[in-house]
Amino acid sequence: MAMALLASPVAAEEKPAEHADGPAAAYEPSMTTLAEIAVEIPGRKEGDPVMTQEEFQTGTKIYFERCAGCHGVLRKGATGKPLTTDITRDNGYDYLHSFITYGSPAGMPNWGTSGELTEDEIDLMARYLLLEPPAPPEYGMAEMRESWNVVVAPEDRPTEKMNDIDIDNLMSVTLRDSGQIALIDGANYKIHAVLDTGYAVHISRISASGRYLFVIGRDAKVNMIDLWMEEPATVAEIKVGMEARSVETSKMEGWEDKYAIAGSYWPPQYVIMDGDTLEPLKIKSTRGMIYDEQSYHPEPRVAAILSSHYRPEFIVNVKETGKILLVDYTDLENLKTTEIEAERFLHDGGLDSTHRYFITAANARNKLVVIDTKEGKLTAITDTGGATPHPGRGANFVHPDHGPVWATSHLGDDSVALIGTDPEGHADKAWEIVESFYALGGGSLFIKTHPVSDNLYVDAPLNPDAEISASVAVFKISDMKAGVEPEYTTLPIGEWAGIADGQPRVVQPEFNKDGSEVWFSVWNAKDKVSAIVVVDDKTLELKEVIKDERLITPTGKFNVYNTRGDVY
Amino acid sequence: MAMALLASPVAAEEKPAEHADGPAAAYEPSMTTLAEIAVEIPGRKEGDPVMTQEEFQTGTKIYFERCAGCHGVLRKGATGKPLTTDITRDNGYDYLHSFITYGSPAGMPNWGTSGELTEDEIDLMARYLLLEPPAPPEYGMAEMRESWNVVVAPEDRPTEKMNDIDIDNLMSVTLRDSGQIALIDGANYKIHAVLDTGYAVHISRISASGRYLFVIGRDAKVNMIDLWMEEPATVAEIKVGMEARSVETSKMEGWEDKYAIAGSYWPPQYVIMDGDTLEPLKIKSTRGMIYDEQSYHPEPRVAAILSSHYRPEFIVNVKETGKILLVDYTDLENLKTTEIEAERFLHDGGLDSTHRYFITAANARNKLVVIDTKEGKLTAITDTGGATPHPGRGANFVHPDHGPVWATSHLGDDSVALIGTDPEGHADKAWEIVESFYALGGGSLFIKTHPVSDNLYVDAPLNPDAEISASVAVFKISDMKAGVEPEYTTLPIGEWAGIADGQPRVVQPEFNKDGSEVWFSVWNAKDKVSAIVVVDDKTLELKEVIKDERLITPTGKFNVYNTRGDVY
Repeated sequence: MAMALLASPVAAEEKPAEHADGPAAAYEPSMTTLAEIAVEIPGRKEGDPVMTQEEFQTGTKIYFERCAGCHGVLRKGATGKPLTTDITRDNGYDYLHSFITYGSPAGMPNWGTSGELTEDEIDLMARYLLLEPPAPPEYGMAEMRESWNVVVAPEDRPTEKMNDIDIDNLMSVTLRDSGQIALIDGANYKIHAVLDTGYAVHISRISASGRYLFVIGRDAKVNMIDLWMEEPATVAEIKVGMEARSVETSKMEGWEDKYAIAGSYWPPQYVIMDGDTLEPLKIKSTRGMIYDEQSYHPEPRVAAILSSHYRPEFIVNVKETGKILLVDYTDLENLKTTEIEAERFLHDGGLDSTHRYFITAANARNKLVVIDTKEGKLTAITDTGGATPHPGRGANFVHPDHGPVWATSHLGDDSVALIGTDPEGHADKAWEIVESFYALGGGSLFIKTHPVSDNLYVDAPLNPDAEISASVAVFKISDMKAGVEPEYTTLPIGEWAGIADGQPRVVQPEFNKDGSEVWFSVWNAKDKVSAIVVVDDKTLELKEVIKDERLITPTGKFNVYNTRGDVY
Repeated sequence: MAMALLASPVAAEEKPAEHADGPAAAYEPSMTTLAEIAVEIPGRKEGDPVMTQEEFQTGTKIYFERCAGCHGVLRKGATGKPLTTDITRDNGYDYLHSFITYGSPAGMPNWGTSGELTEDEIDLMARYLLLEPPAPPEYGMAEMRESWNVVVAPEDRPTEKMNDIDIDNLMSVTLRDSGQIALIDGANYKIHAVLDTGYAVHISRISASGRYLFVIGRDAKVNMIDLWMEEPATVAEIKVGMEARSVETSKMEGWEDKYAIAGSYWPPQYVIMDGDTLEPLKIKSTRGMIYDEQSYHPEPRVAAILSSHYRPEFIVNVKETGKILLVDYTDLENLKTTEIEAERFLHDGGLDSTHRYFITAANARNKLVVIDTKEGKLTAITDTGGATPHPGRGANFVHPDHGPVWATSHLGDDSVALIGTDPEGHADKAWEIVESFYALGGGSLFIKTHPVSDNLYVDAPLNPDAEISASVAVFKISDMKAGVEPEYTTLPIGEWAGIADGQPRVVQPEFNKDGSEVWFSVWNAKDKVSAIVVVDDKTLELKEVIKDERLITPTGKFNVYNTRGDVY
């Protein structure tokens, strides 16, 4: 097996996925987020550094914006190390000051030398960390209902599609820093609508019927958009917490469009909502024991959520405790849950081509976890051989020698790993890494193919090399051979976008409905020109550059048909 | 229906079951309990009362011993009101001081005027409550394994019964203040053994095979006693937390003796253990949302746990969140749980005569909750018509007019309520209160009958009237008539015990194996003579008074056969 563990400019091991979206942008939340909560400075103990209430509030804001993603809201540690006061006081002010300034090879950013924090801010944060962390508020049913808003009631919505949009070929594009999404036509590249949403929409999901589009911002705002309306628009909205990443809808036969679910980072919980109105119905905390050492974790964040095609269940990744929950939505008042012991730091993943198996990355543990959604139990846990797998939904294809496989790229190095997914036809290769090979470089976020495509696309947007981060590697699937390092073509997507100013990164290949085109976001700074580049999958030639002044910081793109059918 | 809602000297509504075991006794734990944890005084804020570290530690000890039972370890409130600093500071020192001194009719004891706290202690507690509460430590797998001790390994235990004890007719008796249990022969009243256990053993449970006896102390110490040994003795022990109430073993066919489970008050969690060794296998936190308002509760304590006869499941009552968990123990690594929305302040309960339905009290809500253990869902929630039902396991019998019923008495008033338990033969009466009548008085803890008995016994140990608290009411079942207040006989059990000194309370009727005798604890102070009084069930005459200098503060008694087969 060809392994590609070259030293990578992106630190492996503890490189957190939370840094994966580029430099922190200006925060423009529509409602309260963690960074905005009012906190009170703790009482003064002997030896405490002197700090004003105002400084403490500023420290909290910086902490939640920059540090909590890795070190946890409660500072108990996650992909980053714990920063509880027993530890920080042992380390002391000077150590903290230096660590914040210079970072570490293990993944701590160099906030000082990079210029992202000022000298004053670093001094403040070094003092801040010596004090007890404030406990952020809970966010339960009362708060959710308060935030819940049915903009257009179900009975006032159209009973049939009122527009001539080819909904299945629509692309929902996250406009990260403007807190919006753009709905772009997959055939003519026309922007049908730009809709206000939460901040930095993390994903788009589509109801099983294809009618409703759900998006969730990092500020935990969920928008439900009716694609049947003459002008697609938000028909319901809710804020489910203070920090969130995931939303999904019920897909089991007989339960289509019935429920939606959203998972939060803070508070650590998920909520099941009515699929027509987003009315919050059932909140479940994820706080509990870490799967292996069985010590209590106060902040197990909800990462990816998928909808099972085999059972009326949501599949919920709980990050810090390393558990995958199968949440049966058939009876919310007598709620059945299966809690699968998996691996810590579960992040994203996808289904295999049969939709029976869920394959997900335990990113900081360099592992893939496979569960059988039909039997409701763990199937396998496998080391990827690479550093910090970051698959998105991954990519399913038939390898000429290995048969059906699912692929992930890595954030921490330049390797692509293929796992066998055919326990019946290729039992000896099932749930093992059958092949690993080099792509462009470390810092990859997404990998993609399509059932009708012969190409496997691998991006590298977080690679520090500007040329690499603006390019994409394309592997020809039919040319792959067991044990042979495959060649790849490099597409200069950034160059094709023709953007003079800034250093745009190319991120997230996404196919149109019929698999004939693949779209890339060319993600520039908020005040600079961004674009979407469309490539012909057969010829690998540039087909279109979509530019529009409304296309501010495009990142994720979600084709309605592929997203709703788990085609990837 | 005859209702008996006379004013009762025991305050209803919020009268907590934690006060149900009489005055707090000297605390003699074998290992760390909540009252013993080392805590650090919080940093001083403007306006904080002056308090030394030593005073803070003392306040914490008093709080955990006297207050946490009702107000919660984290002071978020349970059967008692919340005492978070936003509230206590609003109330102020003088208000708190007065409240602690004089109590309230809603259930707060008069700690000052009763003499249980000194003036200095009240002053200290009023100041203590103005400060932030300390967070008690977690207690996870590492701590459990540290405390775990296999005294006699399974392979070193006898392969057959090595004594001539009629195990099924053995009575396991809690010796509350000596931290022991006594094993008393049901035929000849001989004390076979007095064994050291945790403090104030709350219950005894028997493995499905009848071989192993499990007891749990309030200090969360579990002892597993092998009744086959020549001298029955502890073969394994573990401490599962810092405060606990419940233990149970797996009873489903094919799973007999396989697992044990213990539930804790602090930390709020349960643990599944190996049934041969008490090796801790799986810990599950119960922290989560309150069932109805769906706000987060940090301290949902585990009350009663029962073993299902219909499914391989444990039935776990979670108090503050009002949820009943059905925990499937067939696959601990892919753990299936059904979370039933029930009612807040779930306490104890028992199975109906068919063992299919679990009927449990939501004590501070004056309700009974019924779940169907076969279907795994809620069946009914019914108001008892009385104040603070406290059934223990309750009492099943066939009422001449109403058919099969299950009975509970009340802590907060003198009523006994009967709920219909026969949805097939008496569908119109199923899961409704079909009858309610007077017993001796408020302050009842237990009610009991037996399949072969025609008597229903109701105690009243917490009644402030010495004569009532030393007596028991006996109702003749075959004389009961719908809508007619039944007569009862009063047995002067305390008098029969012939104890000159002290004011013993008579508590917990318990039948011997064949249902011919009923035993009562005559529970006196630690330094005074206690006794067990045995009554002939047919004649209601005194049969035996068991006295022994080792019988210190006997409270709960558990006949092996009846306990293991859920006969009550």
